[in-house]
Formats: sequence, structure tokens, C-alpha cells
Amino acid sequence: MAERTEGVEPESWKTGGKYVEPGGEFTRDQRYIATRITADGRDGYPVEPGRYRLVVSRACPWANRLIIVRRLLGLEDAISMGVAGPTHDERSWTFDLDPGGRDPVLGIERLREAYLARFPDYQRGITVPAMVDVPTGQVVTNDYARMSLDLSTEWTAYHRAGAPDLYPESLRAEIDKVNDGVFRDVNNGVYRCGFAGGQGAYDKAYRRLFDRLDKLSERLRDRRYLVGDTITEADVRLFTTLVRFDPVYHGHFKCNRSKLTEMPVLWAYARDLFQTPGFGDTIDFDHIKRHYYQVHRDINPTGVVPLGPDLGGWLDPHGREALGGRPFGDGTPPPPPPEAERVPVEHTAAARD
Amino acid sequence: MAERTEGVEPESWKTGGKYVEPGGEFTRDQRYIATRITADGRDGYPVEPGRYRLVVSRACPWANRLIIVRRLLGLEDAISMGVAGPTHDERSWTFDLDPGGRDPVLGIERLREAYLARFPDYQRGITVPAMVDVPTGQVVTNDYARMSLDLSTEWTAYHRAGAPDLYPESLRAEIDKVNDGVFRDVNNGVYRCGFAGGQGAYDKAYRRLFDRLDKLSERLRDRRYLVGDTITEADVRLFTTLVRFDPVYHGHFKCNRSKLTEMPVLWAYARDLFQTPGFGDTIDFDHIKRHYYQVHRDINPTGVVPLGPDLGGWLDPHGREALGGRPFGDGTPPPPPPEAERVPVEHTAAARD
Repeated sequence: MAERTEGVEPESWKTGGKYVEPGGEFTRDQRYIATRITADGRDGYPVEPGRYRLVVSRACPWANRLIIVRRLLGLEDAISMGVAGPTHDERSWTFDLDPGGRDPVLGIERLREAYLARFPDYQRGITVPAMVDVPTGQVVTNDYARMSLDLSTEWTAYHRAGAPDLYPESLRAEIDKVNDGVFRDVNNGVYRCGFAGGQGAYDKAYRRLFDRLDKLSERLRDRRYLVGDTITEADVRLFTTLVRFDPVYHGHFKCNRSKLTEMPVLWAYARDLFQTPGFGDTIDFDHIKRHYYQVHRDINPTGVVPLGPDLGGWLDPHGREALGGRPFGDGTPPPPPPEAERVPVEHTAAARD
Repeated sequence: MAERTEGVEPESWKTGGKYVEPGGEFTRDQRYIATRITADGRDGYPVEPGRYRLVVSRACPWANRLIIVRRLLGLEDAISMGVAGPTHDERSWTFDLDPGGRDPVLGIERLREAYLARFPDYQRGITVPAMVDVPTGQVVTNDYARMSLDLSTEWTAYHRAGAPDLYPESLRAEIDKVNDGVFRDVNNGVYRCGFAGGQGAYDKAYRRLFDRLDKLSERLRDRRYLVGDTITEADVRLFTTLVRFDPVYHGHFKCNRSKLTEMPVLWAYARDLFQTPGFGDTIDFDHIKRHYYQVHRDINPTGVVPLGPDLGGWLDPHGREALGGRPFGDGTPPPPPPEAERVPVEHTAAARD
């Protein structure tokens, strides 16, 4: 398994704190809880429907991957989902969107409680996404890179009929390679721009980001998806950064050579995915903007959230069908999200200012 | 004279300090030194070539107006120009670009010295643009709105052959009216977005800004210039904000419904002016970006200056000649700027990242 353990942005996705290291580079704490939920239960947590709860924030690009993969694979009935509010204080992600401010399944107010239930002395970031063992209320893992692959490879018995193979054996080496560059220069690269404490660190991250985006544009010019001719894990990972690019990264993180809307190939590619069931229907632009602009007070001291950009374009035709490709391979698109998991329409691209 | 006295952004263009009023609206200190330099010398400062020095920052949109008007009217020989560096500390604009850090004509290190020479107890903002009386070293006026009109109407004896009439008698009422809306919602409106201390004040300023830009787009759809069929003071005033829109206001001030490049009429209009002698050749994108991002630490604590946006588009064809119009009326374009006043090519739109 070539997949490295990627960071879940503890400096951003944990509970508050400072994000910028004055004068320095942003570095990611990549130490996660490596316990896995597997079919054979070798870490003590076997795959079992109804047993685990995926805790996410819709704001978070790393959690967003899990939301998408769970949707595409049809794991909604097997793994329930708790949604933390987009903002938080130093003490952790809270369930302030839920009645009474408590997650209705776990009965907790803060995600922190699930971390402490397993590790009473836990010192690292309280991050989303996290898988929580419902019977014990203990967090199992927050290693999101591993988590999303395990949904594909360990939970197969509970995939819906027609679920796509997001991590096909024959393409894993290529997917891992693409993911590696996308992670370093794009997914994490935008944070390295935004949390750079000095001009040199920023300049370097900016150039790497746009060099990589140019290379990805070239790659996607005549092929519909990143690897093979169907949607894979690689597309999920690039998408969650692209969809946040103009609303947040362009301005807030100074990734401003051009907007996504000004990079024609990537913009059409992102729209294509956005309009594919399981992608755009997971996106809450309100949560995304409020999280970044209200939580990162050390780069946005006023906490004012921009009203822009105009998001209407996400629903415009993309023309990428002409490139061929079979989004779900031999499978089928997922049905609409369960009623309880729908993003409020006023938080979507269909909302108008 | 319907022209109101406009502010020169003391909260931004003075010496350092805080720009954001927490929770509140940005309000502009509009009290300027109202002394005028006139042909009849009624305030004690008669028009006289070689006597006054215009002190500017190329970063500043209010000073930029004066630089443009002086160029268009060919007043370079009559009124010399001192250029302060783009950044400054709390004690005032400095002549750090000049050899030895002193303005070669006034012999001072800080603009503040010229203010104090006239008003030893001066308490208000040390702002650019400012006209300084060279013999006494005293500031005469910093009322830039009045100053630019006076260059047009009081300095006529020293205009170059072929100088345009930027404030024609017959159009003054219309120019004043257009300027009034542009000042409130656009020139000052971007500051009201960027320095809003709370969401409500920001939202209001953002809506007014884009409503006004939409109206201006409509007005300029089938006419080449804002008033009449030649360049006037109204175009100068709108231009200096538009040229800063994507490099600064879009991200730094959260004016992000769309970039200028995404508003086709205004973008072509701005490019047309940019490519007109006397406009684009006054623009120093390096000074512009460094000023805003490095000085306003209360909205950009790291002081990191974005590398974007890509500025190459400023030189693209604009197609506005098809609308007719005579840029300089019966006059002619100005010759290139004097050698000593040229913007370094690496600070222009011709520079490539």
C-alpha cells in the first residue's frame, strides 16, 4: 500500500489556536490515530454496520472527501454521520447544529469528548473527519487518508448496488502517484500559501501550487478524469480543494494568480464533478466560508466573511462529456442524499445573493 | 462649484495606525487643508511654475489622480513631483526611494516635516497627495479633489499644447454628479468594504459597491467615456480604483463578487484608459500591492504580499475604439513621461512573474 498518511490539517482543523508561524513555513502535524476499521477486525474494530459514526465538518476539505466517498459507495445506512458546526472555539468542534447542542447518536457536545474517552491524556489536534465507535463513544481513527481508502476496500460488503470502484487494484500505483503531488502542492499547498509566516515561504508555496495546477490542467485537457476513464479517489481529493478555491483560497489564502474560473480546463473539470451526484450535493458554501474566515483570526482579524464570489457558474454546462469517460464505470450514480443530510439550499450554488 | 471636498483616506494614507474600527463602519476624516493655489493667488499661493512640488505615493489612488492629471495636462515642467516610498511607519510617508533617503528638492526625509513646517501643532493625517511650497518647505494643501480640478482650471497658462480639457464648463454638473456616486460607492466604497469592523457594515458597502459598478457597466456599454465623448476628470477618478481592483481590493478588501476581469464592460473600459498615454504609464503595481498588504497589518497581520494576479491582460486589445469617442478631444496625447519619472518596467503590467 503506497498510500502515505496525510495530514488532516491539525493546525486548521483542530480546535482554534494559531495557524501562522511568524516568519516560517506552515508545517502539518501528520501524526494521526492509525487504528483501522477492517473487514478482519485486526485492530479490534471490525467492519460492522451501525457501529460507527463518521464525524465531519462540511467546511473541511479533508472531511469532505469522506462525505463524498460514503455517498458514492452508498454507505449512508452502514455508517451514520454527525455534522459539527462550521466554527468552533479552542476547546473543539461542537455539535451546535444539533438540537440541544448534542450529537443525537453520541450524546456529546464536543468531538473532544470522544477523543478523551479513548485517550484521556490526548494532546494532539481534535480533528475532523473522525470515526467514533458508537457503543463506547471512543474515537477509532482520524487518519482520513487511510479512512477513505478503507471505505472503498474494507466495507465492500455494505456498498450499494452499482457502487463505483474508487480505488481499483490495477490503478492504485498511478492513483497514489497523482495523489502524492496533489496532496503536497494543492491540497496542502493552499495552506502553505495561506499560513506562510513570511514572504519566502509564501512565494515558494504559491509557485508550487500554480505549477502543479498547470500540470493538472495539461493532464485533464483531453481526459475526463485524473486516472483511468472513471471517477477515482484521485478525483475526490482534487475536487475538495478546487471547490473551495474561489470562495476561500483565492483571497483568504492569497492563491491569487487566477481564480479557478479563469483556468478553463480545471474549471470545467470541477464543474463536471460538482454536477455529478455525490459531489456537489455535499458542498455547503456557507459552512466553508464561515469556517475559514471566522476561525482563522490570525489572518482575518475582523472575522468578516466575504459575500462573494458569485457561485452561479457551478451549474453551467461543462462540455466534458465530449471527452468520453464513464463516471461510474460499470456502476451507477448514487441516489439523492437522505433527507436529513441535505445541504440547505441557501448554502448551495443555487442560492443567489 | 458643486465639487465636494473628498477625503484622501487619512485612515489609510496617513502614517500607519489602525484602520478598522471594531464592529463599526469605516468613516473618512474629510478635513483637509483647504488652501488653494490659484491664478489670482487669493489664498497667498499664486500659480507659479517651479514653485510647488507635488508629493505623491504611486500606491495611493487619490495621489494617482494627480499624477495622471499632471501628465495629461503636461504640467511636469511647471510642478515637480516627489515620490514617497510605498510603505511607511507611524511617523509618516518617507522619501526612502531617494538617494540618502531625502527628497532631493525639499531636502526632507519625511513628508511630515512639510506639514509641521506650516502647522507646528498639526494633528490630523499626514496624507498624500500634498502640494508643498518649495521656498518655505511648507505644505500648501492636501485637498486632492480640489487640487486636481485646480490643475485643470487654474494652471491653464502652463498646460502643454494639445492638453485636453478634463473639466469642461458645459459638462461640470454631469461630471460632478457622476463623481459623487463613484466617490461614495466605489473610490471610498472599497475602503468601506475592507475596513469594515463588522459583517453588517461590510455587507452594506459590498452591495453598494457592486450595485454602482453594475450601473457604471450599463452606462459604459455603448459610450466610451463616462461623460461626453472625451476623457474627463470623471474617468481619471474611476480609473484609479479600477486599476487597483484585482491586485488589491478584490482580495485584501473582500470586494470579491467578481474580479474586474470578470466585468467585461468595465474591464475593457479600464484597459482602454490603461493603454492611453498618461494613465497606464503612471501605474506601479509593485508599489500598489506592497503598500496595501504591508501597511494594513490589522487586516493582513503577516504582511505577506500576494504574487498574483497575473496582470498580462492589461495590454490586451480592448475594442473600445468601435464606440467612437475622441480621447483627447481637439487635443493630443501626452508624450512619454520624463525619464526620471518612469515606472520601473518590473513594476508594470509588462513584467511577468
